[in-house]
Amino acid sequence: MKKKRANDQQEAEKALVGAMAAEMVETDMAIGLGTGSTVRHFAQALGQRIRMGLRVRVICTSRQSEMLAKQNDIPTTDFDRARSLDLCVDGADEVSLNFDMIKGGGGALLYEKIVAAASNRRIYMADATKLVGKLGEFPLPVEICRFGHQNVLSHLAKLAQQCALRQRDGDPVITDAGNYIADCQFGEIDRPAELHRQLCDIPGVVETGLFCGMIDTLITIRNGKPVVLTSPGEVFWGS
Amino acid sequence: MKKKRANDQQEAEKALVGAMAAEMVETDMAIGLGTGSTVRHFAQALGQRIRMGLRVRVICTSRQSEMLAKQNDIPTTDFDRARSLDLCVDGADEVSLNFDMIKGGGGALLYEKIVAAASNRRIYMADATKLVGKLGEFPLPVEICRFGHQNVLSHLAKLAQQCALRQRDGDPVITDAGNYIADCQFGEIDRPAELHRQLCDIPGVVETGLFCGMIDTLITIRNGKPVVLTSPGEVFWGS
Repeated sequence: MKKKRANDQQEAEKALVGAMAAEMVETDMAIGLGTGSTVRHFAQALGQRIRMGLRVRVICTSRQSEMLAKQNDIPTTDFDRARSLDLCVDGADEVSLNFDMIKGGGGALLYEKIVAAASNRRIYMADATKLVGKLGEFPLPVEICRFGHQNVLSHLAKLAQQCALRQRDGDPVITDAGNYIADCQFGEIDRPAELHRQLCDIPGVVETGLFCGMIDTLITIRNGKPVVLTSPGEVFWGS
Repeated sequence: MKKKRANDQQEAEKALVGAMAAEMVETDMAIGLGTGSTVRHFAQALGQRIRMGLRVRVICTSRQSEMLAKQNDIPTTDFDRARSLDLCVDGADEVSLNFDMIKGGGGALLYEKIVAAASNRRIYMADATKLVGKLGEFPLPVEICRFGHQNVLSHLAKLAQQCALRQRDGDPVITDAGNYIADCQFGEIDRPAELHRQLCDIPGVVETGLFCGMIDTLITIRNGKPVVLTSPGEVFWGS
């Protein structure tokens, strides 16, 4: 019962931050549309604004994100037509005190990072449960090449406390780019940028779920209300 | 005519280094089989030894490498059956004085690097034309994700002097892993390891053709004869 109440509250927070993110979209923008449950709320709120006359187009970061666009009548585009994006709106799995993130719980980390790197401004949304002092409670998703993945997993296992190929119904999950995902436990991550580089040095690692220095704007919850933060110093974590 | 003589000599050198590499294979080894024209000579020489009774099995780094194995009756295996490899034998497109390399002219750099990282010992073969003081005359192949490649190319173009998507018959070349290749000119590469990291920091870059610190043994040509080098100091470059 308590858990249900917590879940309800989290869902309400996701709706609040999603709606606030949709308010920050301006007409004629090309937007990167992230992936995940908070993005679902953003897409619904954006769809409402579009039906009121807002003109935007989005590049999707996953098939799930394409479905969200379709369900909410959000026009889509691609990198042939939109070379750079005005804005990228996405969720986070974990955000640390100094604005580093773990993403990839939904398996779309590679496309999410490519879209983020193509965007002039990046807005991330996080309900209160996602805020942490240091990253690492959420297992870090690492996208790896299928060829030789057995050996890449051995390399990862030397660095991580635990490390497992993500599976669904007994088969390895295959990303939209055709790769596998290894979920890795490192304990508290003291230096995320350094860990990211260490992991990228392993041949066969395509991308990691560590997003360092990528937040321009964080929309989160304080005292039950959505707040917009643009630098780590502004947030009183855990309030 | 002069060019034909140069080509003949290069081909003869490839045959010499390929044959010498095949001599270094021991029975019951699991081997990574590289890709390219020098590897073709190695595979032919290895095939002869197999027909004389040598027992080996190889993991191939490309479809071309699979064909070479088949043509020369070399038994193949995979990473499910062979977790680590005793040896990896591959060619180089450019080898610098301090044993750094550019690879990927054949488009197989990703699998070649994964196989190299899975090998206990790595032998690279290079005819005399491949030896350079500093890397950079050979355009550096960079394997990039197809999704968002337009934007990744823009990022690469900021770092490189020139940069173009590799094409064949008017279409972008697709690697065995399903990615594109960007061939990039950087001029003389002073710090290859640093450039590799800079490139890997671009979301969408899957792997680069810079192979730094990966040569255990270099088989090359000096005074028309094959020589086996195990450290940069041993070579008098350009002799």
